[in-house]
Amino acid sequence: MEASLERIGTQIDRDLDQHIANIQSLIRQPSMSTSGGLGIREMAVRLQKAFAELGCQDTALFDTSGNPVVFGHYDTGASKTLIVYLMYDTEAVLPEEEWISPPLEANLVELPPFGRCIIGRGAVNSKGPLQAFLNTVAAIHAAGEALPVNLKFVAEGEEELGSIHVADVLQDHGASLQADALFFPAAGQQANGHTTLTLGSRTAIIFELEVNGERWGRGPSKFEIHAGSRSLVDCPVSHLLEALNCLIADNGNRILVEGFYEDVVPPNEEEEELLDRLAARWDEEAYRARLGVKAFIDGLAGRAALKRLIFEPAFNIRGIYGGDSRTGDVNVSKAIIPHRAVCKVGLSLVPDQNKVDIVEKIRAHLDRNGFADVAMRVRPDYLRDPGAWGQVSVHDDIVVAMLHTYARYGIDPEIWPRSPGGWPGYLFQHYLGIPFLSGGAGHGGGAHSSNEYLVVDGHDTVRGLADLEKSYAHMLYEYASL
Amino acid sequence: MEASLERIGTQIDRDLDQHIANIQSLIRQPSMSTSGGLGIREMAVRLQKAFAELGCQDTALFDTSGNPVVFGHYDTGASKTLIVYLMYDTEAVLPEEEWISPPLEANLVELPPFGRCIIGRGAVNSKGPLQAFLNTVAAIHAAGEALPVNLKFVAEGEEELGSIHVADVLQDHGASLQADALFFPAAGQQANGHTTLTLGSRTAIIFELEVNGERWGRGPSKFEIHAGSRSLVDCPVSHLLEALNCLIADNGNRILVEGFYEDVVPPNEEEEELLDRLAARWDEEAYRARLGVKAFIDGLAGRAALKRLIFEPAFNIRGIYGGDSRTGDVNVSKAIIPHRAVCKVGLSLVPDQNKVDIVEKIRAHLDRNGFADVAMRVRPDYLRDPGAWGQVSVHDDIVVAMLHTYARYGIDPEIWPRSPGGWPGYLFQHYLGIPFLSGGAGHGGGAHSSNEYLVVDGHDTVRGLADLEKSYAHMLYEYASL
Repeated sequence: MEASLERIGTQIDRDLDQHIANIQSLIRQPSMSTSGGLGIREMAVRLQKAFAELGCQDTALFDTSGNPVVFGHYDTGASKTLIVYLMYDTEAVLPEEEWISPPLEANLVELPPFGRCIIGRGAVNSKGPLQAFLNTVAAIHAAGEALPVNLKFVAEGEEELGSIHVADVLQDHGASLQADALFFPAAGQQANGHTTLTLGSRTAIIFELEVNGERWGRGPSKFEIHAGSRSLVDCPVSHLLEALNCLIADNGNRILVEGFYEDVVPPNEEEEELLDRLAARWDEEAYRARLGVKAFIDGLAGRAALKRLIFEPAFNIRGIYGGDSRTGDVNVSKAIIPHRAVCKVGLSLVPDQNKVDIVEKIRAHLDRNGFADVAMRVRPDYLRDPGAWGQVSVHDDIVVAMLHTYARYGIDPEIWPRSPGGWPGYLFQHYLGIPFLSGGAGHGGGAHSSNEYLVVDGHDTVRGLADLEKSYAHMLYEYASL
Repeated sequence: MEASLERIGTQIDRDLDQHIANIQSLIRQPSMSTSGGLGIREMAVRLQKAFAELGCQDTALFDTSGNPVVFGHYDTGASKTLIVYLMYDTEAVLPEEEWISPPLEANLVELPPFGRCIIGRGAVNSKGPLQAFLNTVAAIHAAGEALPVNLKFVAEGEEELGSIHVADVLQDHGASLQADALFFPAAGQQANGHTTLTLGSRTAIIFELEVNGERWGRGPSKFEIHAGSRSLVDCPVSHLLEALNCLIADNGNRILVEGFYEDVVPPNEEEEELLDRLAARWDEEAYRARLGVKAFIDGLAGRAALKRLIFEPAFNIRGIYGGDSRTGDVNVSKAIIPHRAVCKVGLSLVPDQNKVDIVEKIRAHLDRNGFADVAMRVRPDYLRDPGAWGQVSVHDDIVVAMLHTYARYGIDPEIWPRSPGGWPGYLFQHYLGIPFLSGGAGHGGGAHSSNEYLVVDGHDTVRGLADLEKSYAHMLYEYASL
């Protein structure tokens, strides 16, 4: 194994300029699922071709009612098979004027202290890591080595839309997708070299609540009316506020919906242990600084803060809107009573909360409290697989392999039982029964934002592109050896 | 008087085509204070010239820190002097595509059942009535009659901005503006011929409330962050909702601010009587239909509804905004915690509430209840003259003159002690001590909206332009005769 890795590493160093060029080329092909699907189809076709050129014996475009999933099977005759989950879509580039280098040019730019970086949409999320993984496979071949595991590439084009058709593909093509584990190549280091390894993913429900006068039977029904009548005419905005107030309290940090918390599972023994270890080393201040948050809910800190972050559900008002929305200039104001008001809610759930059950509980709670008129529109794809969530044990082979890999780079990652956010790995666990993990040495930043970058040169603690690719090779070999 | 009015009426009929053309010409000159002041200066200069041509011995542009007020004094040697309040600004024309005839072309269009109407921005609010009044004065001259009262024209160009500099002019030019009463020419009939006559005007406070994480010290402080952390990070939108919830209850219909209602004056004897008379004839259903409102607050009806409408203050949320405001498609949603949330409030006050006092009470109430961090931005011009409000007695000469005038047209107006909304007449009462009134036979619609129109032909109940102008002449003569 070591000799092979040595040769592969040398090959990666030798081919690095070509590997950089490959990433730049991939970024230059836009594929923005959130901007009307710009370039999505071209990217899918291109990826299928790339899988074939890499030596996949079998490739396919799995159609969905949305963007296709690109499949590639590289059977090297090994005893273990790994799904390599990839996403070929990106966020939009807006606002374009904030970029210091055009988002689709993928230029190499000096970004201290990291040296050269590739700047472009998808550089880290996730065309950079995607192509870096393909580069790694190519280097393994070029070095005359055999892949130590079979690979099944599964590249979806709707991650930025919430992976809304992955479950369909898993259901339709489950037989083709049998594997031992799933790996999602990433650049796992933060700007200071710190690295987290998350063992699980939570799920969410997205919905809108709307009050309109028509349905309410009070207030203006069809159009906004002159504010002069407010003494006698109800205001839909106020009604929405009361509906929200009946659902949540304590600045939205406590959810009042009857039965909401009853299926929340407290941390088990392994999770309590992980929490202890994580709390002992968590750089809380850096975490807060990165988010621009001065203090956490209820002034929580340390282990208690982590426990809330990982194990508690959340009711988040993503947005609220009603009436005159021109804010910031009090001289600009329309003398109206709005006829409708809407808010967007993201509900982050934890095991064993069931999404369909939770939606029913919210609806019933609203109805019971006099808000039967409040419309609740639930994003339907988020109710698919209502009980699904995912988490692997720290003792799973794929996790151990990644920890061994990180150890080679002097990286001792924080281990999080679950990530605060989510990614679709849990669906593969749900449908295929396999563990899932994301990782990789190396660093990038600006995901979803302007000036997204992937570090090419790096330094002692933040690894560059060559080490990112080598870490993927290490992970494959470590996994194969377990 | 009757012989003079006869001759003036004949003159108006004879010159009607020219009068129509005059109104069209005025509308074709845009003067939109809410659209960056488009055409405002041109209109002011034009009006000053018109006052001079009409025979005013003295005209002036009173400068303000905003748009100028145009003054014209026509001294006919009569014993009484009337201020003719005019507004030369209009709202914007947006959305332009909704107009069936271009808003600045002022075309004559057949609009059943009214016959020909002038369609254009300002047709009824209020270039139409403005020019109709000037047409009337011209007809009086052309008929060889003398004006029965002296006129002082005061035309402001910021009514649509809230008449924010009228008080300055009244303070600076009070001596020039001495008069016995104020009249605001309008087309006072509704589409069904019903007419209201309001004796007073209430005032308002406009303010914004803002929660931002920076000032709050909790939640995201400088930018929106990924929703994944919501279990541990506070949400500014929720905090704003709680602040509002501490200020109001019962769908915003009850104001919880300590001491808020203590200066509210109950109706006096004359007002109770007016309320009785108004309730006996109020077409409540038509009122609701016009507003598109199915039911009033607490299911109120009749006298109780009118009493609340006229004599109760109101807390109106004109708009609320925070985070992702793209509503109506639950599939479009940004996974963020917003870093700020804002709402716009219009507070409609009644006698003897003092605006400065009320603002202080709201601030103190927020502070006392744990919302010291909530920023409150009050529109400063709305705190000018904090105790000013206005109302005249039904027995005032100007009111009696208008009632006599309406009687000539078979119009028996509903008399409202105060209008639910407001116009700046009360400031003239406050600074000059004179009664104020608005009125006129005739009808128009679509103020602030698309397809604004003024009826030219009319029919038995809804009077046309000739009668509108004649009613102004009648009002002047009736007033002079009292």
